[in-house]
Formats: sequence, C-alpha cells, structure tokens
Amino acid sequence: MENAGQYLAAMRARAPLVQNITNYVAMNVMANILLAIGASPAMNHAHEEVAEFAGLADALSVNLGTLDPYWVTSMELAARAMAGQGKPWVLDPVAVGATALRRDAGARLLALRPGIIRGNASEIIALAGAEAAGRGADTANTVSDAEGAAGALARQTGGVVAVTGEVDYVTDGSAAFRIAGGHALMPRITVLGCSLTGVVAAFAAGQPPLEATVAALASYAVAGEMAGELAKGPGSFQVAFIDALYLMTPQDVTARARITAA
Amino acid sequence: MENAGQYLAAMRARAPLVQNITNYVAMNVMANILLAIGASPAMNHAHEEVAEFAGLADALSVNLGTLDPYWVTSMELAARAMAGQGKPWVLDPVAVGATALRRDAGARLLALRPGIIRGNASEIIALAGAEAAGRGADTANTVSDAEGAAGALARQTGGVVAVTGEVDYVTDGSAAFRIAGGHALMPRITVLGCSLTGVVAAFAAGQPPLEATVAALASYAVAGEMAGELAKGPGSFQVAFIDALYLMTPQDVTARARITAA
Amino acid sequence: MENAGQYLAAMRARAPLVQNITNYVAMNVMANILLAIGASPAMNHAHEEVAEFAGLADALSVNLGTLDPYWVTSMELAARAMAGQGKPWVLDPVAVGATALRRDAGARLLALRPGIIRGNASEIIALAGAEAAGRGADTANTVSDAEGAAGALARQTGGVVAVTGEVDYVTDGSAAFRIAGGHALMPRITVLGCSLTGVVAAFAAGQPPLEATVAALASYAVAGEMAGELAKGPGSFQVAFIDALYLMTPQDVTARARITAA
Repeated sequence: MENAGQYLAAMRARAPLVQNITNYVAMNVMANILLAIGASPAMNHAHEEVAEFAGLADALSVNLGTLDPYWVTSMELAARAMAGQGKPWVLDPVAVGATALRRDAGARLLALRPGIIRGNASEIIALAGAEAAGRGADTANTVSDAEGAAGALARQTGGVVAVTGEVDYVTDGSAAFRIAGGHALMPRITVLGCSLTGVVAAFAAGQPPLEATVAALASYAVAGEMAGELAKGPGSFQVAFIDALYLMTPQDVTARARITAA
Repeated sequence: MENAGQYLAAMRARAPLVQNITNYVAMNVMANILLAIGASPAMNHAHEEVAEFAGLADALSVNLGTLDPYWVTSMELAARAMAGQGKPWVLDPVAVGATALRRDAGARLLALRPGIIRGNASEIIALAGAEAAGRGADTANTVSDAEGAAGALARQTGGVVAVTGEVDYVTDGSAAFRIAGGHALMPRITVLGCSLTGVVAAFAAGQPPLEATVAALASYAVAGEMAGELAKGPGSFQVAFIDALYLMTPQDVTARARITAA
Repeated sequence: MENAGQYLAAMRARAPLVQNITNYVAMNVMANILLAIGASPAMNHAHEEVAEFAGLADALSVNLGTLDPYWVTSMELAARAMAGQGKPWVLDPVAVGATALRRDAGARLLALRPGIIRGNASEIIALAGAEAAGRGADTANTVSDAEGAAGALARQTGGVVAVTGEVDYVTDGSAAFRIAGGHALMPRITVLGCSLTGVVAAFAAGQPPLEATVAALASYAVAGEMAGELAKGPGSFQVAFIDALYLMTPQDVTARARITAA
C-alpha cells in the first residue's frame, strides 16, 4: 500500500456508477461526496427497480440509517442482484445494535455476505453478535475493541471489514492495515461515515477489495486533514472537505497517507 | 434567566441523545445543528423501532413537515413512549393549518400533551384552533398575534409553548419571556426552525422545560447574530451558523442573550 | 428576451409558493435555492393532501429522482389538481430511461401534459421514446442531440421543453432559444438540475411559460457564473451559488444573460 493514490486514480478513470440504498440524512451529502471525489452516485429504493438498476451500476452501498422493513427488502433485492453479477456491495450497519429491527436487518444482510462492511467500533462489535456499548449512530467502543469482531466477521463473510474511528482498522480476516489521519471535527458532522461507505464502494468497483478499502479510507483521511487546515468549525469543515475531495490528487494521497500493516 | 449560558453548558455536559421523527428536508441540517451545538442526533421512523428507540433517547422531537399517515403513527408511538418514561418531547406543527391531514395530525399529537411546542405564529394560532394566515411553512401572522393562542395551548397541555419569529415568545401559561436576536437572513434558509425544535429537545433533557426552551432560543439567536457578522447571503450564513453553534461558549450566550420577562 | 431580469423581478414580487414533489436527495438544497432566489418552497407527498395543497400553491414541480409507486401517484394527483386550476406544473424526468418503473412513470406524467419539462439531454431523448445514452442521473448525450426530441415533446404536450447542459435549449415546438453560461463545476454538485426545475416552476407562476423558462435558466446561469468567480471546488461553489441567487439583481441578469434565438 505504498502507492495508495493509484487506487484513487483508477477510480477516477473509471468514474463508477455507485447505487446507494441509504438513509434520508445521508443522501445529499453522500451524493456530493461521491461526485466530488470522482464517482457517479444514484439513490433509489423502489422494489420495482433496485435489482434492475443494479444491472447498470458498478457498485452498491446499503445503509441501515433510517431503515424500515420496506427499505430492508430493497437492500436485499439489490445486494442479491449485485452479488449475482459479481459486482461489489458494501454494508453500513448504522446503529445495528440499537433495536431488534436493526439487529434483524443486520443479520439478514450479513447472511448475503457483503463483500465489504464499514462501520464504527460499536456497530462492528454488535454485528458480530457481541455486546456493544454504542447507542444511536455513536460509538462507545474504541477501534481496537473491535479488531477481534472485525476479523471474525471477515472470516464469516469471506469479505473485508473496516472499522473506522480515530485510527481505522481494515482486515480481510488474515491481512490487516491501520489508517491514521482525518480530523477531530469529523465526528461533529453527520453522515461522513455513511458517505465514506459509498466512497469505499466506488473504489471497490473493479479493484481488489482489501486494497480498495484501505485506499478509500486513506484518501478520505487525507482530504479530512486538508479540510482541517481551513476549517473554523463543522460548517466550514464540510465545505472545505468537499472541496478537498475534489482537489486532492493521487500524489497527495500517496504522499500523505498514513497506512501501516497491523 | 440572567445566566442563560448555564443551560447550554449543562446540555453539552449531558450530550443528550435526541430522537427526531422529522421531515425529509430537515434531517441532514438538523443532525448537523444538533452535533454542532453539542447533542447527539438520531433520526428514525419505523413503527417496529420508534418506541424501543425512545427507551435509549434522552428527548424526542416530532415534526409534521413532510408528513404522511405512516409517519404520524410513528410520532404517536414515540411520543407515548417518551411520555411514559417521563422524558421530554417537543412538537413542531409545520404548516398545521394548511390541509385537513395536518389539522388532524396536529390534533392527534396535541391530545398526547407535548411537553413543549415550537412553531411560528401562524402554526401556533392554527394549532390552537383559530383562523391563521400562513400557507406552507411561512407565517403571515406576527409573534404578538399568537401570544393568546400560545397561552391557551400551554394551559391546555400543561406544557411550554414557544412562538418563534423576529422576537420569540415563550410561555408555560403563566410566566412568559421574550427573546430577541437572530438575523434577518434566517427566514431565507430552510429548516432552521425545524432544527431549533431539535435543539429545544436537547436543552429540555434533564432541565426544566420553560428555562430550557428560553435558553435554547437565546443560544440559537446568539449563534445567528455571530453568523450574521460573517455571512454574505444565505449560503454563507448556514456555514457560519453551524460554526457559531459549535464555537459559541456559555459565556457568549449569557453575555449576548436578550431575554426579557413578558 | 433582451430584458430577462424583468422575469426575475416579477417572480420576486410575487414570491410564489412552489409545491415540490421531489426526490429525497434534492429536498433541502431545492428549498434553499428557492428561498435564496425569492420564492417560497413547500415539500409534501401524502395522497391525502397533495391535491388540497395544490389549491394553495402557485406552481408545482414533480421529480422522478427517488421515485416509488406511492410517489408517482402523489405526482399524478397534484399535477391533475394544478392543471385543473390552470396553474403551471413542471416535470423533471430524472433518469427516465434507466428502468421500466421510470419509463412507465414518465409516460404516465407525460400523458397529463406538463406545461414545462426540464431535463438533461439523455432524459429528454428517453422521454420522447428514443434510445438515449445516459445512465443514472448523468447524461451521455449532448444538448444538440436532444433538440429534435425536445421539439417533438413540446408539440406533443403543447408545452415548453428545456434541455439543460453546457448550453441550454428551450422550445415550445416552434420558437426556440439557447442559453449559455453557468460554470464547469455545476455538474459536480448534486441536484442543481432538480433545483432548477423548482426555479422554473417559480418563474412560471403567472408568467408566460416560454419566456419564464428561458429567464429562469438564464438567471441560474448568471448565478452560476458569479459563484464560479469565488469557488475553489464543489463545496465552496454550492455556498457561493446560494449566496449569488440571493444577491443577484434583475439588472445583473439582464446584463449578463447570454440568450440567443435558436
């Protein structure tokens, strides 16, 4: 992973169409983040079209944020369609431990074996079936608390699991990486995690999932550092972050990424 | 209310989890405003989880903005659950006078006796059953037009009613306060009122409802003034406002708040 | 169209209430754009109220973005109510060629004869029944590719059709105009096209549809140019664009608009 920027360059060259079945809070910012970094977003949810649309898309992200049973079915239909075509899909298990509905939705999507899972520490721990300490979309666990759960989930799905936080942890069940960076204001802005899941999906289109996930997280962290140099608070951070996602070059990512083997 | 900033400090120390069953237009900005000021937002609506989630939350806001019958039931389920646990919930009766669906939803939620109601003058007048002059989310009445309706609603519910506008009016049916401040650009930015309802809920978690509401409105007005010093138009105002909510101190609020007994 | 700014001035004087049955991604930004330029937005979708609300509104926009069958019915109910009162409604056929659900929804709304249609080239071509090259909300066709389809649609509906892109094309089936301007960053920001459809609806309230559409597009392009002078990337562009919509004067529009007869 010494040249993380190459994965950003390849993603931009492909400009993948990323289908997102995501929460209402995230939709606009997630679309802007995907456009800024160089992908093409599409949001949809109707049972009549999600599988058909998956035929057009290069990657899929699904997100439990503002779920209800209709949307869980949408996610299942699209995930099955993507997997059936050998295209990547990424699960974001927002607040999966908070309620029975979320635990059930998480279990149903996990059974479809997502190629990549991205969550915070409490979400990854809860999804793995252990007792987590988060509530809502917050986390009360640290990333290192979740390393065991991440490895277990990766081995169970045969996929990649990313735990994001102050220092991110990514594993495919055997190899693992840590990614430092970002900025202290990022948890004070809503749906940056949800949006990152879409960015992971964009990087995973046509690229190996472990490396794509690590490079997506590293690119996001570099953009966060660039934005942090300009921000006065969470409002100006969000503006500067979207600018940075657009302005940063593959060379910036390679030069500034802080990736270590775990 | 000479030390309005103490309520901001106490809210930040608690960092309450605020559940919001709110409209699609507001969700993202409301979450960012709650995060910026120091609370933790969660948006959900599924009948299967809203009451269960209310068990985790410290306060609830419900908002009629983009309502449909499913969402009204969500609001009723969550409001009953919060009230049953003695935790505060706040009603935002967006455009309640505009259609029969809204009048009916307003009446159903009013019957559950919200601890706090926050609306513009036309909404408060319409919710009290009188003839209002607003259309859509606008108001065509002034705050002073709505003082009588606010007092009547407060006595009917046993709660607090806040009418927001150029100078806000808050009453519990006996005592009343006026809060000046804010900025002339604020009505040119969507969902700042909806988001304020969430901020009121955050302040009301574990604090007395009348004082919490007055302090929430005063803090919002101070942040609005701070943002107005930097803004060129409604786009830059929104950015500066979210920064100001994050940057303002309890001392700023106490020093700058313009609260008078009514 | 030498004095395009007069239509902006007339729209601001009227401050029309624009009802929008639009997608989840667009709602917040669209509301802010309508407020910034001087209109009053309202978003709703419940079958119980959309037709009743149309009685209050001055214009309607409907948008296929995140459609499902419930929302398509909402659009049909509102469009019929607006047309029945002789008030303008505008169709935004987002990604209409992408799936069967979208093709069907587009055909159903087209049958109600929208007064104005605004889409990108691929959407206009697909709505006219031809083979288009877009996927998702992107376009793979140029505006000039879609001129024939636009004219055919205009003659079919008896209304106005606007194809937006680098240089926009507007026709009522006989007369036609081209509008240049805007900024290269605009396609990198989500829902600026959707929001423009709401702006077209605002201009069309009480103004002749061909001239109103041309003036709306020209005003948007002028604001885009003004924003482009300040933007560093898509994040700061969006902020500057909303400021510019608020700050630009009718004189700015008349002086800077680049409208030519086609």
